[in-house]
Amino acid sequence: MVFPPSGAVPAAGVMPTFQFLPFSALLGTLGLLCVVFTGFWSQHWRGGFAWDGSTKMFNWHPICMVTGMLVLYGAAVLVYRVPSSWAGPKLPWKLLHAALTLAAFVLVVLGLVAVFGFHNAQGTPNMYSLHSWLGLAAVLFFSCQWLMGFTAFLLPWSPAWLRIIYKPVHVFFGSTILALAMAASISGINEKLFFSLTNKTVPYAKLPPEAWFANSLGMLILVFGLLVLWALATPAWKRPESESLEDRQPLLH
Amino acid sequence: MVFPPSGAVPAAGVMPTFQFLPFSALLGTLGLLCVVFTGFWSQHWRGGFAWDGSTKMFNWHPICMVTGMLVLYGAAVLVYRVPSSWAGPKLPWKLLHAALTLAAFVLVVLGLVAVFGFHNAQGTPNMYSLHSWLGLAAVLFFSCQWLMGFTAFLLPWSPAWLRIIYKPVHVFFGSTILALAMAASISGINEKLFFSLTNKTVPYAKLPPEAWFANSLGMLILVFGLLVLWALATPAWKRPESESLEDRQPLLH
Repeated sequence: MVFPPSGAVPAAGVMPTFQFLPFSALLGTLGLLCVVFTGFWSQHWRGGFAWDGSTKMFNWHPICMVTGMLVLYGAAVLVYRVPSSWAGPKLPWKLLHAALTLAAFVLVVLGLVAVFGFHNAQGTPNMYSLHSWLGLAAVLFFSCQWLMGFTAFLLPWSPAWLRIIYKPVHVFFGSTILALAMAASISGINEKLFFSLTNKTVPYAKLPPEAWFANSLGMLILVFGLLVLWALATPAWKRPESESLEDRQPLLH
Repeated sequence: MVFPPSGAVPAAGVMPTFQFLPFSALLGTLGLLCVVFTGFWSQHWRGGFAWDGSTKMFNWHPICMVTGMLVLYGAAVLVYRVPSSWAGPKLPWKLLHAALTLAAFVLVVLGLVAVFGFHNAQGTPNMYSLHSWLGLAAVLFFSCQWLMGFTAFLLPWSPAWLRIIYKPVHVFFGSTILALAMAASISGINEKLFFSLTNKTVPYAKLPPEAWFANSLGMLILVFGLLVLWALATPAWKRPESESLEDRQPLLH
């Protein structure tokens, strides 16, 4: 833990800040655990993975969404918080941010294809539950966010006024989309357990090991997401606005 | 919309800020709609309210939780953002904050009694779903938050160092508890619709009017909660730290 330079006790109203890199290592561990837990749940209790319209195809849905929409997305939004990104050219960090969010987007599309393919093969209706509404909202916002980010911040001919006006909106929706993805993941896990743990197996209400495990996964996703949101909101980790830096990078700042 | 005083265009990276009071009026309307929607859902589709161990007793659970843990809580956390609270004594605003959160706490306890009473009367197990885990975490954190807040900020003999160190922690958990309550509400609505809309009525998957209505309530709760979190995070609305003010209010600042 690092206190502000003024002394050993934080100033009134100031949260003691942690060092960014150890905090990121913790986040990376938690994110990896989210993916491993989701994979283990699908493999151990839900029959594993396939691409054949069965529940094994459905299993690609949670793994793609957790990996893409939460973990890769979480890594992508924290790129500008890496202290070494603050000096020197911004372009490599921008490309990394765009590449990570693009990889997340590809996984999200695969995750959607998996669940729609499974539903259509089984004759199950799509898009009726609150989980699906939240998830679709997250994906739609995420798509617009990527396209707008690319247009405003990567195309060299986008005007400076557009970047200035759009940047805080982009930053705000970055957190909002993550919150939507968290709510969608949690309602999705809850819903999946009600579908899967019925009287044919052991009911959810009897809290079998699978329920313990997947409930814990839900709590883990919540902790991971809240810590990413906290890291995003921590003023000490924000990239300082540097006009001179932007003057040196007139096209691709 | 009010831009920063420097001119008609916001400075780079600065979100244009809205006026707090009209924004609060919007939040108040959305919060009221959340309560009215929850009441209408219970009254119109779920049989109304009673305190007899039936599903009518359960119906007190969502109405108490949405009113207490989201709407009253949302009002309570925004008390210090009211611009007129920044000048003059802090104590009346503190008492209002404590009273609103206490009222929220009473409703939350009633909401818990309603659901445990219903489960016990029906022989349904308690505390197995991810929704219930999230909800219990929210309530436990909220209880600790209230007790710690009372101890540190209202008891006149609490030491200044405790207030200084604890304040940012209290502020951080204020947002975290709201996020937990949002995730619990959304997974709870999703779960309730799967319980209620079965083949005996019209299945959830057929998206009957009740499903449309309650899904919309879930989205409304999300929008309300995210806007409260946004208001909390907006730097322009934060109460300025005033050392001189605290000097004048040595005991009850």
